[in-house]
Amino acid sequence: MNPPSMPRAADSFPIWKYRKDGGVEKTEDFITVEEPLEIRIQGKSIAITMRTPGHDAELAVGFLFTERVINNREQIVEVAHCQRGDVDHPENIINVFLTNSSEIDFSSLTRHVFGSSSCGICGKATIETVTCDFNPLPIGHTVDLTILERIPDLARNHQDTFELTGGLHAACLFDKHGGFMICREDVGRHNAVDKVIGWHLLNQTEAEATILSISGRASFEIVQKAASAGIPVINTISAPSSLALELAQAAGITLVGFHRTNGFNIYTHPERIILPSQS
Amino acid sequence: MNPPSMPRAADSFPIWKYRKDGGVEKTEDFITVEEPLEIRIQGKSIAITMRTPGHDAELAVGFLFTERVINNREQIVEVAHCQRGDVDHPENIINVFLTNSSEIDFSSLTRHVFGSSSCGICGKATIETVTCDFNPLPIGHTVDLTILERIPDLARNHQDTFELTGGLHAACLFDKHGGFMICREDVGRHNAVDKVIGWHLLNQTEAEATILSISGRASFEIVQKAASAGIPVINTISAPSSLALELAQAAGITLVGFHRTNGFNIYTHPERIILPSQS
Repeated sequence: MNPPSMPRAADSFPIWKYRKDGGVEKTEDFITVEEPLEIRIQGKSIAITMRTPGHDAELAVGFLFTERVINNREQIVEVAHCQRGDVDHPENIINVFLTNSSEIDFSSLTRHVFGSSSCGICGKATIETVTCDFNPLPIGHTVDLTILERIPDLARNHQDTFELTGGLHAACLFDKHGGFMICREDVGRHNAVDKVIGWHLLNQTEAEATILSISGRASFEIVQKAASAGIPVINTISAPSSLALELAQAAGITLVGFHRTNGFNIYTHPERIILPSQS
Repeated sequence: MNPPSMPRAADSFPIWKYRKDGGVEKTEDFITVEEPLEIRIQGKSIAITMRTPGHDAELAVGFLFTERVINNREQIVEVAHCQRGDVDHPENIINVFLTNSSEIDFSSLTRHVFGSSSCGICGKATIETVTCDFNPLPIGHTVDLTILERIPDLARNHQDTFELTGGLHAACLFDKHGGFMICREDVGRHNAVDKVIGWHLLNQTEAEATILSISGRASFEIVQKAASAGIPVINTISAPSSLALELAQAAGITLVGFHRTNGFNIYTHPERIILPSQS
Protein backbone atom coordinates (compact mmCIF):
# COMPACT_ATOMS: atom_id res chain seq x y z
CA MET A 1 0.00 0.00 0.00
CA ASN A 2 2.87 2.21 -0.92
CA PRO A 3 1.89 4.09 -4.07
CA PRO A 4 4.65 5.84 -6.00
CA SER A 5 4.10 9.38 -7.20
CA MET A 6 0.94 9.37 -9.29
CA PRO A 7 1.71 8.52 -12.92
CA ARG A 8 0.05 10.39 -15.70
CA ALA A 9 -3.18 8.97 -17.12
CA ALA A 10 -2.80 11.01 -20.32
CA ASP A 11 0.21 12.14 -22.34
CA SER A 12 0.63 14.64 -25.14
CA PHE A 13 1.40 13.29 -28.63
CA PRO A 14 1.83 14.95 -32.04
CA ILE A 15 -1.18 14.48 -34.33
CA TRP A 16 -2.34 15.69 -37.73
CA LYS A 17 -5.77 17.21 -37.49
CA TYR A 18 -7.79 17.23 -40.74
CA ARG A 19 -10.93 19.35 -40.87
CA LYS A 20 -13.09 19.69 -44.00
CA ASP A 21 -13.25 23.43 -43.64
CA GLY A 22 -9.67 23.96 -42.50
CA GLY A 23 -7.33 21.45 -44.15
CA VAL A 24 -4.53 19.75 -42.25
CA GLU A 25 -2.83 21.09 -39.16
CA LYS A 26 -0.01 19.46 -37.24
CA THR A 27 -0.71 19.88 -33.53
CA GLU A 28 -0.61 18.06 -30.18
CA ASP A 29 -3.34 16.18 -28.37
CA PHE A 30 -3.79 14.31 -25.10
CA ILE A 31 -3.95 10.53 -25.42
CA THR A 32 -4.98 8.06 -22.71
CA VAL A 33 -1.95 6.15 -21.46
CA GLU A 34 -2.10 2.35 -21.87
CA GLU A 35 0.69 0.22 -20.42
CA PRO A 36 0.94 -3.40 -19.28
CA LEU A 37 0.77 -4.24 -15.59
CA GLU A 38 2.16 -7.55 -14.42
CA ILE A 39 0.52 -8.78 -11.21
CA ARG A 40 2.65 -11.08 -9.05
CA ILE A 41 1.69 -13.06 -5.95
CA GLN A 42 4.56 -14.03 -3.63
CA GLY A 43 6.87 -13.13 -6.54
CA LYS A 44 5.18 -15.32 -9.14
CA SER A 45 3.66 -13.75 -12.25
CA ILE A 46 -0.04 -14.56 -12.42
CA ALA A 47 -1.55 -12.03 -14.83
CA ILE A 48 -0.80 -9.22 -17.24
CA THR A 49 -3.43 -6.60 -17.93
CA MET A 50 -3.22 -3.56 -20.19
CA ARG A 51 -4.17 -0.67 -17.97
CA THR A 52 -3.95 3.08 -17.47
CA PRO A 53 -1.20 3.60 -14.87
CA GLY A 54 -2.34 4.78 -11.44
CA HIS A 55 -4.02 3.04 -8.51
CA ASP A 56 -2.20 -0.18 -9.41
CA ALA A 57 -2.49 -1.57 -5.87
CA GLU A 58 -6.27 -1.16 -6.05
CA LEU A 59 -6.33 -2.81 -9.47
CA ALA A 60 -4.29 -5.80 -8.30
CA VAL A 61 -6.34 -6.26 -5.12
CA GLY A 62 -9.65 -5.77 -6.91
CA PHE A 63 -8.63 -8.27 -9.58
CA LEU A 64 -7.58 -10.90 -7.02
CA PHE A 65 -10.78 -10.35 -5.02
CA THR A 66 -13.23 -10.46 -7.94
CA GLU A 67 -11.38 -13.46 -9.39
CA ARG A 68 -11.79 -15.09 -5.96
CA VAL A 69 -8.07 -15.61 -5.44
CA ILE A 70 -8.44 -13.78 -2.11
CA ASN A 71 -11.52 -13.52 0.09
CA ASN A 72 -10.74 -10.67 2.44
CA ARG A 73 -8.36 -7.85 3.27
CA GLU A 74 -6.70 -9.72 6.11
CA GLN A 75 -4.96 -12.04 3.65
CA ILE A 76 -2.96 -9.11 2.25
CA VAL A 77 0.40 -8.39 3.90
CA GLU A 78 1.72 -5.86 1.41
CA VAL A 79 1.11 -4.51 -2.07
CA ALA A 80 4.05 -2.71 -3.67
CA HIS A 81 5.60 -1.96 -7.03
CA CYS A 82 8.75 -3.85 -7.95
CA GLN A 83 11.76 -2.26 -6.26
CA ARG A 84 14.53 -3.96 -8.24
CA GLY A 85 16.89 -1.66 -10.07
CA ASP A 86 17.80 -4.22 -12.74
CA VAL A 87 14.26 -4.56 -14.13
CA ASP A 88 12.94 -2.49 -17.02
CA HIS A 89 9.84 -0.56 -16.00
CA PRO A 90 9.48 -1.75 -12.39
CA GLU A 91 6.52 0.65 -12.19
CA ASN A 92 4.65 -1.82 -14.41
CA ILE A 93 5.12 -4.75 -12.03
CA ILE A 94 3.14 -4.99 -8.80
CA ASN A 95 3.81 -7.52 -6.05
CA VAL A 96 1.08 -8.75 -3.76
CA PHE A 97 2.31 -10.53 -0.63
CA LEU A 98 -0.26 -12.66 1.13
CA THR A 99 -0.20 -14.26 4.58
CA ASN A 100 1.42 -17.66 4.77
CA SER A 101 -1.91 -19.19 5.60
CA SER A 102 -3.41 -18.02 2.30
CA GLU A 103 -3.73 -21.07 0.15
CA ILE A 104 -3.14 -20.24 -3.50
CA ASP A 105 -3.41 -22.92 -6.12
CA PHE A 106 -0.70 -21.74 -8.50
CA SER A 107 -1.35 -24.59 -10.89
CA SER A 108 -4.80 -23.16 -11.57
CA LEU A 109 -3.35 -19.65 -11.64
CA THR A 110 -0.87 -20.41 -14.41
CA ARG A 111 -3.94 -20.70 -16.60
CA HIS A 112 -4.94 -17.25 -15.43
CA VAL A 113 -2.26 -15.37 -17.29
CA PHE A 114 -4.00 -13.00 -19.67
CA GLY A 115 -4.72 -9.39 -20.46
CA SER A 116 -8.18 -8.33 -19.45
CA SER A 117 -8.48 -5.31 -21.71
CA SER A 118 -6.00 -6.58 -24.26
CA CYS A 119 -5.59 -10.18 -25.16
CA GLY A 120 -2.96 -9.70 -27.84
CA ILE A 121 -0.43 -10.34 -25.11
CA CYS A 122 -2.18 -13.31 -23.55
CA GLY A 123 0.13 -16.09 -22.58
CA LYS A 124 3.19 -13.87 -22.68
CA ALA A 125 3.63 -13.39 -18.99
CA THR A 126 6.42 -10.91 -19.03
CA ILE A 127 6.30 -7.28 -20.02
CA GLU A 128 9.47 -7.62 -22.07
CA THR A 129 7.66 -9.74 -24.65
CA VAL A 130 4.62 -7.50 -25.07
CA THR A 131 5.93 -5.65 -28.04
CA CYS A 132 6.21 -8.45 -30.55
CA ASP A 133 8.46 -8.17 -33.55
CA PHE A 134 6.66 -6.85 -36.57
CA ASN A 135 8.12 -6.14 -39.95
CA PRO A 136 6.84 -2.60 -40.46
CA LEU A 137 4.36 -2.44 -43.33
CA PRO A 138 5.69 -0.54 -46.36
CA ILE A 139 3.71 2.54 -47.33
CA GLY A 140 2.76 0.90 -50.66
CA HIS A 141 -0.53 2.18 -52.06
CA THR A 142 -1.68 5.51 -50.77
CA VAL A 143 -5.33 6.07 -49.83
CA ASP A 144 -7.21 9.03 -51.17
CA LEU A 145 -8.84 11.36 -48.66
CA THR A 146 -12.22 11.05 -50.38
CA ILE A 147 -12.13 7.27 -49.86
CA LEU A 148 -11.35 7.62 -46.17
CA GLU A 149 -14.10 10.19 -45.67
CA ARG A 150 -16.75 7.73 -46.86
CA ILE A 151 -15.72 4.88 -44.52
CA PRO A 152 -17.78 5.72 -41.38
CA ASP A 153 -21.05 5.99 -43.35
CA LEU A 154 -20.35 2.79 -45.30
CA ALA A 155 -19.51 0.95 -42.08
CA ARG A 156 -22.62 2.19 -40.27
CA ASN A 157 -24.85 0.91 -43.07
CA HIS A 158 -23.78 -2.65 -42.26
CA GLN A 159 -24.25 -2.59 -38.49
CA ASP A 160 -27.59 -4.37 -38.49
CA THR A 161 -27.67 -5.67 -34.94
CA PHE A 162 -26.40 -2.42 -33.44
CA GLU A 163 -29.47 -0.73 -34.91
CA LEU A 164 -31.57 -3.22 -32.97
CA THR A 165 -29.82 -3.28 -29.59
CA GLY A 166 -27.43 -0.32 -29.37
CA GLY A 167 -24.93 -2.56 -27.62
CA LEU A 168 -22.42 -4.07 -30.00
CA HIS A 169 -19.05 -3.47 -31.62
CA ALA A 170 -18.44 -3.68 -35.34
CA ALA A 171 -15.36 -4.24 -37.49
CA CYS A 172 -15.36 -3.79 -41.30
CA LEU A 173 -12.78 -4.35 -44.01
CA PHE A 174 -12.40 -2.21 -47.12
CA ASP A 175 -10.11 -2.68 -50.12
CA LYS A 176 -7.66 -0.09 -51.39
CA HIS A 177 -10.33 1.57 -53.55
CA GLY A 178 -12.65 1.90 -50.56
CA GLY A 179 -14.76 -1.03 -51.72
CA PHE A 180 -16.69 -2.73 -48.92
CA MET A 181 -15.49 -6.28 -48.19
CA ILE A 182 -17.12 -7.47 -44.95
CA CYS A 183 -18.64 -6.34 -41.67
CA ARG A 184 -19.02 -8.35 -38.48
CA GLU A 185 -20.57 -7.42 -35.14
CA ASP A 186 -19.82 -8.79 -31.67
CA VAL A 187 -20.09 -7.89 -27.99
CA GLY A 188 -16.28 -8.00 -27.96
CA ARG A 189 -14.20 -5.47 -29.90
CA HIS A 190 -11.48 -8.08 -30.35
CA ASN A 191 -13.90 -10.71 -31.59
CA ALA A 192 -15.35 -8.44 -34.28
CA VAL A 193 -11.81 -7.84 -35.58
CA ASP A 194 -10.96 -11.56 -35.40
CA LYS A 195 -14.12 -12.37 -37.36
CA VAL A 196 -13.33 -10.09 -40.31
CA ILE A 197 -9.70 -11.23 -40.40
CA GLY A 198 -10.83 -14.86 -40.19
CA TRP A 199 -13.35 -14.22 -42.99
CA HIS A 200 -10.58 -12.83 -45.17
CA LEU A 201 -8.36 -15.81 -44.51
CA LEU A 202 -11.14 -18.33 -45.19
CA ASN A 203 -12.43 -16.55 -48.32
CA GLN A 204 -9.18 -15.55 -49.94
CA THR A 205 -10.12 -12.99 -52.50
CA GLU A 206 -8.00 -11.00 -54.90
CA ALA A 207 -8.79 -7.85 -52.96
CA GLU A 208 -6.26 -6.66 -50.40
CA ALA A 209 -7.72 -5.72 -47.04
CA THR A 210 -6.48 -2.12 -46.79
CA ILE A 211 -8.68 -0.37 -44.21
CA LEU A 212 -9.88 -1.88 -40.93
CA SER A 213 -12.74 0.25 -39.62
CA ILE A 214 -13.78 -0.31 -35.99
CA SER A 215 -16.61 1.16 -33.95
CA GLY A 216 -14.73 1.39 -30.65
CA ARG A 217 -11.44 2.50 -29.22
CA ALA A 218 -8.17 1.55 -30.88
CA SER A 219 -6.17 -0.25 -28.20
CA PHE A 220 -2.78 -1.95 -28.41
CA GLU A 221 -4.37 -5.27 -29.18
CA ILE A 222 -6.47 -4.04 -32.10
CA VAL A 223 -3.33 -2.60 -33.71
CA GLN A 224 -1.48 -5.86 -33.04
CA LYS A 225 -4.22 -7.81 -34.83
CA ALA A 226 -4.12 -5.46 -37.83
CA ALA A 227 -0.32 -5.77 -37.95
CA SER A 228 -0.57 -9.58 -37.82
CA ALA A 229 -2.92 -9.49 -40.79
CA GLY A 230 -0.91 -6.88 -42.72
CA ILE A 231 -3.71 -4.29 -42.81
CA PRO A 232 -2.10 -0.84 -43.27
CA VAL A 233 -4.91 1.57 -42.22
CA ILE A 234 -7.07 1.57 -39.06
CA ASN A 235 -10.03 3.92 -38.86
CA THR A 236 -12.25 4.60 -35.84
CA ILE A 237 -14.79 7.16 -34.73
CA SER A 238 -13.36 6.79 -31.22
CA ALA A 239 -10.02 7.41 -29.47
CA PRO A 240 -6.71 5.52 -29.58
CA SER A 241 -4.53 4.66 -26.58
CA SER A 242 -0.88 5.64 -26.21
CA LEU A 243 0.36 2.09 -26.75
CA ALA A 244 -1.84 1.65 -29.82
CA LEU A 245 -0.31 4.76 -31.27
CA GLU A 246 3.24 3.64 -30.46
CA LEU A 247 2.70 0.19 -31.95
CA ALA A 248 1.06 1.66 -35.08
CA GLN A 249 4.07 3.93 -35.52
CA ALA A 250 6.48 0.99 -35.19
CA ALA A 251 4.40 -1.34 -37.37
CA GLY A 252 3.99 1.11 -40.26
CA ILE A 253 0.24 1.45 -39.75
CA THR A 254 -1.75 4.63 -40.42
CA LEU A 255 -4.03 5.20 -37.44
CA VAL A 256 -7.05 7.49 -37.94
CA GLY A 257 -9.30 8.37 -35.00
CA PHE A 258 -12.17 10.58 -33.87
CA HIS A 259 -13.52 10.33 -37.41
CA ARG A 260 -16.60 12.57 -37.45
CA THR A 261 -18.55 14.30 -40.20
CA ASN A 262 -16.30 17.36 -40.18
CA GLY A 263 -12.95 15.55 -40.24
CA PHE A 264 -10.61 13.23 -38.36
CA ASN A 265 -7.26 12.99 -36.56
CA ILE A 266 -4.28 11.12 -38.00
CA TYR A 267 -2.01 9.75 -35.27
CA THR A 268 0.64 7.90 -37.29
CA HIS A 269 2.00 7.65 -40.85
CA PRO A 270 -0.01 10.46 -42.48
CA GLU A 271 2.13 9.96 -45.62
CA ARG A 272 -0.16 7.10 -46.65
CA ILE A 273 -3.15 9.43 -47.03
CA ILE A 274 -3.36 11.88 -49.90
CA LEU A 275 -4.48 15.06 -48.18
CA PRO A 276 -5.57 18.34 -49.81
CA SER A 277 -2.40 20.25 -49.00
CA GLN A 278 -0.30 17.48 -50.52
CA SER A 279 -2.27 16.94 -53.74
CA MET B 1 -16.22 -24.37 -42.70
CA ASN B 2 -19.61 -25.85 -42.09
CA PRO B 3 -21.70 -23.14 -40.45
CA PRO B 4 -24.94 -24.19 -38.77
CA SER B 5 -28.08 -22.18 -39.35
CA MET B 6 -27.30 -18.60 -38.36
CA PRO B 7 -27.91 -18.02 -34.64
CA ARG B 8 -29.57 -14.87 -33.45
CA ALA B 9 -27.33 -11.95 -32.52
CA ALA B 10 -30.14 -10.33 -30.51
CA ASP B 11 -32.97 -11.73 -28.41
CA SER B 12 -36.06 -10.17 -26.90
CA PHE B 13 -36.20 -9.77 -23.11
CA PRO B 14 -38.76 -8.22 -20.73
CA ILE B 15 -37.69 -4.83 -19.39
CA TRP B 16 -39.13 -2.04 -17.27
CA LYS B 17 -38.89 1.28 -19.05
CA TYR B 18 -38.93 4.36 -16.81
CA ARG B 19 -39.42 7.75 -18.46
CA LYS B 20 -39.65 10.98 -16.49
CA ASP B 21 -42.68 12.08 -18.43
CA GLY B 22 -44.38 8.69 -18.62
CA GLY B 23 -43.66 6.64 -15.53
CA VAL B 24 -42.89 2.92 -15.67
CA GLU B 25 -43.96 0.58 -18.44
CA LYS B 26 -43.24 -3.14 -18.65
CA THR B 27 -42.29 -3.94 -22.21
CA GLU B 28 -39.85 -5.98 -24.33
CA ASP B 29 -36.55 -4.94 -25.85
CA PHE B 30 -33.85 -6.49 -28.03
CA ILE B 31 -30.63 -7.35 -26.20
CA THR B 32 -27.31 -8.34 -27.80
CA VAL B 33 -26.65 -12.04 -27.27
CA GLU B 34 -23.44 -12.88 -25.38
CA GLU B 35 -22.41 -16.53 -24.96
CA PRO B 36 -19.10 -18.30 -24.38
CA LEU B 37 -17.29 -19.95 -27.28
CA GLU B 38 -14.73 -22.63 -26.54
CA ILE B 39 -12.09 -22.92 -29.26
CA ARG B 40 -10.45 -26.33 -29.61
CA ILE B 41 -7.48 -27.38 -31.74
CA GLN B 42 -7.24 -31.10 -32.55
CA GLY B 43 -9.82 -31.62 -29.77
CA LYS B 44 -7.90 -29.72 -27.07
CA SER B 45 -9.46 -26.67 -25.44
CA ILE B 46 -7.21 -23.65 -25.97
CA ALA B 47 -9.41 -20.60 -25.35
CA ILE B 48 -12.79 -19.40 -24.21
CA THR B 49 -14.09 -16.08 -25.41
CA MET B 50 -17.41 -14.41 -24.67
CA ARG B 51 -18.88 -13.63 -28.07
CA THR B 52 -22.05 -12.91 -29.98
CA PRO B 53 -22.97 -16.19 -31.70
CA GLY B 54 -22.56 -16.30 -35.47
CA HIS B 55 -19.52 -16.60 -37.75
CA ASP B 56 -17.80 -18.74 -35.14
CA ALA B 57 -15.50 -20.38 -37.70
CA GLU B 58 -14.26 -16.94 -38.76
CA LEU B 59 -13.76 -15.95 -35.13
CA ALA B 60 -11.76 -19.10 -34.34
CA VAL B 61 -9.61 -18.80 -37.47
CA GLY B 62 -9.06 -15.06 -37.04
CA PHE B 63 -8.12 -15.58 -33.41
CA LEU B 64 -5.61 -18.33 -34.24
CA PHE B 65 -4.14 -16.25 -37.07
CA THR B 66 -3.80 -12.96 -35.17
CA GLU B 67 -2.41 -14.85 -32.15
CA ARG B 68 0.11 -16.40 -34.57
CA VAL B 69 -0.92 -19.97 -33.78
CA ILE B 70 -1.41 -20.49 -37.53
CA ASN B 71 0.30 -18.68 -40.40
CA ASN B 72 -1.85 -19.49 -43.41
CA ARG B 73 -5.08 -21.02 -44.65
CA GLU B 74 -3.40 -24.20 -45.88
CA GLN B 75 -2.83 -25.35 -42.31
CA ILE B 76 -6.60 -25.60 -41.74
CA VAL B 77 -8.22 -28.96 -42.56
CA GLU B 78 -11.64 -28.30 -41.10
CA VAL B 79 -13.50 -25.91 -38.78
CA ALA B 80 -16.74 -27.25 -37.35
CA HIS B 81 -18.97 -26.96 -34.32
CA CYS B 82 -18.97 -29.85 -31.89
CA GLN B 83 -21.18 -32.68 -33.20
CA ARG B 84 -21.46 -34.74 -30.03
CA GLY B 85 -24.95 -35.31 -28.75
CA ASP B 86 -23.88 -35.77 -25.12
CA VAL B 87 -22.44 -32.27 -24.73
CA ASP B 88 -24.44 -29.30 -23.42
CA HIS B 89 -24.48 -26.48 -25.95
CA PRO B 90 -22.33 -28.02 -28.70
CA GLU B 91 -23.03 -24.83 -30.68
CA ASN B 92 -20.71 -23.05 -28.23
CA ILE B 93 -17.75 -25.32 -28.96
CA ILE B 94 -15.80 -25.03 -32.20
CA ASN B 95 -13.17 -27.51 -33.36
CA VAL B 96 -10.30 -26.48 -35.60
CA PHE B 97 -8.45 -29.35 -37.22
CA LEU B 98 -5.01 -28.52 -38.59
CA THR B 99 -2.72 -30.48 -40.89
CA ASN B 100 -0.45 -32.98 -39.20
CA SER B 101 2.54 -30.90 -40.18
CA SER B 102 1.26 -27.89 -38.22
CA GLU B 103 3.42 -27.64 -35.17
CA ILE B 104 1.45 -26.39 -32.19
CA ASP B 105 3.16 -25.86 -28.89
CA PHE B 106 0.33 -26.85 -26.58
CA SER B 107 2.42 -26.15 -23.51
CA SER B 108 2.49 -22.46 -24.45
CA LEU B 109 -1.18 -22.63 -25.43
CA THR B 110 -2.33 -23.87 -22.04
CA ARG B 111 -1.41 -20.39 -20.85
CA HIS B 112 -3.61 -19.02 -23.59
CA VAL B 113 -6.89 -20.00 -22.00
CA PHE B 114 -8.78 -16.79 -21.42
CA GLY B 115 -11.83 -14.76 -22.41
CA SER B 116 -11.01 -11.87 -24.65
CA SER B 117 -14.13 -9.83 -24.07
CA SER B 118 -14.80 -11.28 -20.65
CA CYS B 119 -12.10 -12.29 -18.27
CA GLY B 120 -14.39 -13.29 -15.44
CA ILE B 121 -14.18 -16.79 -16.83
CA CYS B 122 -10.44 -16.84 -17.41
CA GLY B 123 -8.79 -20.03 -16.44
CA LYS B 124 -12.02 -21.96 -16.47
CA ALA B 125 -11.61 -23.73 -19.75
CA THR B 126 -14.99 -25.35 -19.94
CA ILE B 127 -18.31 -23.76 -20.64
CA GLU B 128 -19.94 -25.73 -17.83
CA THR B 129 -18.04 -23.70 -15.24
CA VAL B 130 -18.80 -20.25 -16.65
CA THR B 131 -21.74 -19.59 -14.44
CA CYS B 132 -20.14 -19.61 -11.02
CA ASP B 133 -22.19 -20.19 -7.94
CA PHE B 134 -23.37 -16.99 -6.36
CA ASN B 135 -25.55 -16.62 -3.35
CA PRO B 136 -28.19 -14.26 -4.74
CA LEU B 137 -28.05 -10.90 -3.00
CA PRO B 138 -31.09 -10.20 -0.81
CA ILE B 139 -33.15 -7.16 -1.80
CA GLY B 140 -32.23 -5.46 1.49
CA HIS B 141 -32.29 -1.68 1.28
CA THR B 142 -34.28 -0.22 -1.54
CA VAL B 143 -32.94 2.68 -3.60
CA ASP B 144 -35.00 5.76 -4.19
CA LEU B 145 -35.61 6.79 -7.79
CA THR B 146 -34.35 10.31 -7.09
CA ILE B 147 -31.01 8.90 -5.94
CA LEU B 148 -30.63 6.80 -9.06
CA GLU B 149 -31.52 9.71 -11.33
CA ARG B 150 -28.58 11.75 -10.02
CA ILE B 151 -25.93 9.02 -10.56
CA PRO B 152 -24.90 9.74 -14.19
CA ASP B 153 -24.26 13.45 -13.51
CA LEU B 154 -22.36 12.70 -10.28
CA ALA B 155 -20.25 10.09 -12.08
CA ARG B 156 -19.47 12.38 -15.01
CA ASN B 157 -18.18 15.09 -12.66
CA HIS B 158 -15.37 12.74 -11.59
CA GLN B 159 -14.19 11.58 -15.02
CA ASP B 160 -11.22 13.92 -15.21
CA THR B 161 -9.10 12.12 -17.77
CA PHE B 162 -12.03 11.38 -20.07
CA GLU B 163 -12.55 15.13 -20.35
CA LEU B 164 -8.97 15.39 -21.57
CA THR B 165 -8.74 12.44 -23.98
CA GLY B 166 -12.25 11.20 -24.77
CA GLY B 167 -10.95 7.63 -24.63
CA LEU B 168 -11.39 6.05 -21.26
CA HIS B 169 -13.79 4.01 -19.16
CA ALA B 170 -14.90 4.97 -15.67
CA ALA B 171 -16.34 3.08 -12.72
CA CYS B 172 -17.77 4.78 -9.63
CA LEU B 173 -19.16 3.53 -6.34
CA PHE B 174 -22.02 5.15 -4.43
CA ASP B 175 -23.43 4.29 -1.02
CA LYS B 176 -27.06 3.50 -0.31
CA HIS B 177 -27.94 7.17 0.13
CA GLY B 178 -26.40 8.03 -3.24
CA GLY B 179 -23.28 9.44 -1.58
CA PHE B 180 -20.23 9.42 -3.83
CA MET B 181 -17.49 7.02 -2.65
CA ILE B 182 -14.86 6.71 -5.40
CA CYS B 183 -14.29 6.99 -9.15
CA ARG B 184 -11.51 5.39 -11.18
CA GLU B 185 -10.73 5.60 -14.89
CA ASP B 186 -8.91 3.09 -17.11
CA VAL B 187 -8.56 2.07 -20.75
CA GLY B 188 -10.10 -1.25 -19.68
CA ARG B 189 -13.70 -1.49 -18.49
CA HIS B 190 -12.78 -4.41 -16.25
CA ASN B 191 -9.80 -2.59 -14.76
CA ALA B 192 -11.87 0.45 -13.78
CA VAL B 193 -14.26 -1.87 -11.91
CA ASP B 194 -11.39 -3.79 -10.29
CA LYS B 195 -9.87 -0.49 -9.13
CA VAL B 196 -12.98 0.74 -7.31
CA ILE B 197 -13.60 -2.68 -5.76
CA GLY B 198 -9.93 -2.86 -4.74
CA TRP B 199 -10.17 0.64 -3.28
CA HIS B 200 -13.16 -0.42 -1.21
CA LEU B 201 -11.37 -3.51 0.10
CA LEU B 202 -8.20 -1.58 0.96
CA ASN B 203 -10.03 1.37 2.59
CA GLN B 204 -12.73 -0.44 4.46
CA THR B 205 -15.24 2.21 5.35
CA GLU B 206 -18.51 1.99 7.19
CA ALA B 207 -20.34 2.79 3.96
CA GLU B 208 -21.76 -0.09 1.96
CA ALA B 209 -21.01 0.05 -1.75
CA THR B 210 -24.56 -0.05 -3.13
CA ILE B 211 -24.41 1.29 -6.69
CA LEU B 212 -21.68 0.50 -9.24
CA SER B 213 -21.91 3.04 -12.05
CA ILE B 214 -19.99 2.25 -15.24
CA SER B 215 -19.48 4.27 -18.41
CA GLY B 216 -19.56 1.36 -20.84
CA ARG B 217 -21.56 -1.74 -21.63
CA ALA B 218 -22.60 -4.14 -18.90
CA SER B 219 -21.19 -7.52 -19.92
CA PHE B 220 -21.26 -10.84 -18.10
CA GLU B 221 -17.94 -10.16 -16.47
CA ILE B 222 -18.88 -6.76 -15.04
CA VAL B 223 -21.91 -8.36 -13.39
CA GLN B 224 -19.74 -11.20 -12.11
CA LYS B 225 -17.36 -8.69 -10.49
CA ALA B 226 -20.26 -6.81 -8.85
CA ALA B 227 -21.67 -10.10 -7.57
CA SER B 228 -18.25 -11.09 -6.17
CA ALA B 229 -18.13 -7.81 -4.27
CA GLY B 230 -21.77 -7.95 -3.13
CA ILE B 231 -22.82 -4.73 -4.90
CA PRO B 232 -26.59 -4.89 -5.50
CA VAL B 233 -27.15 -2.20 -8.18
CA ILE B 234 -25.35 -1.67 -11.51
CA ASN B 235 -26.03 1.51 -13.48
CA THR B 236 -24.82 2.34 -17.00
CA ILE B 237 -25.60 4.84 -19.73
CA SER B 238 -24.94 2.02 -22.21
CA ALA B 239 -26.44 -1.39 -23.06
CA PRO B 240 -26.29 -4.73 -21.27
CA SER B 241 -25.66 -8.12 -22.91
CA SER B 242 -27.99 -11.11 -22.64
CA LEU B 243 -25.63 -13.02 -20.35
CA ALA B 244 -25.12 -9.98 -18.12
CA LEU B 245 -28.87 -9.77 -17.73
CA GLU B 246 -29.22 -13.49 -17.00
CA LEU B 247 -26.44 -13.42 -14.41
CA ALA B 248 -27.85 -10.26 -12.78
CA GLN B 249 -31.23 -11.99 -12.51
CA ALA B 250 -29.66 -15.07 -10.91
CA ALA B 251 -27.36 -13.08 -8.61
CA GLY B 252 -30.09 -10.79 -7.25
CA ILE B 253 -28.60 -7.68 -8.85
CA THR B 254 -30.65 -4.74 -10.15
CA LEU B 255 -29.33 -3.87 -13.61
CA VAL B 256 -30.13 -0.38 -14.95
CA GLY B 257 -29.10 0.59 -18.48
CA PHE B 258 -29.44 3.26 -21.17
CA HIS B 259 -29.60 5.81 -18.38
CA ARG B 260 -30.20 9.15 -20.13
CA THR B 261 -31.59 12.49 -19.01
CA ASN B 262 -35.19 11.44 -19.71
CA GLY B 263 -35.11 8.07 -17.96
CA PHE B 264 -33.62 4.57 -17.97
CA ASN B 265 -34.36 0.90 -18.50
CA ILE B 266 -34.46 -1.64 -15.66
CA TYR B 267 -33.52 -5.13 -16.82
CA THR B 268 -33.64 -7.11 -13.57
CA HIS B 269 -35.00 -6.88 -10.02
CA PRO B 270 -36.99 -3.64 -10.33
CA GLU B 271 -38.35 -4.31 -6.82
CA ARG B 272 -35.18 -2.77 -5.39
CA ILE B 273 -35.99 0.65 -6.84
CA ILE B 274 -38.78 2.75 -5.44
CA LEU B 275 -40.57 3.94 -8.57
CA PRO B 276 -43.37 6.52 -8.82
CA SER B 277 -46.15 4.04 -9.44
CA GLN B 278 -45.08 2.02 -6.44
CA SER B 279 -44.63 4.88 -3.99
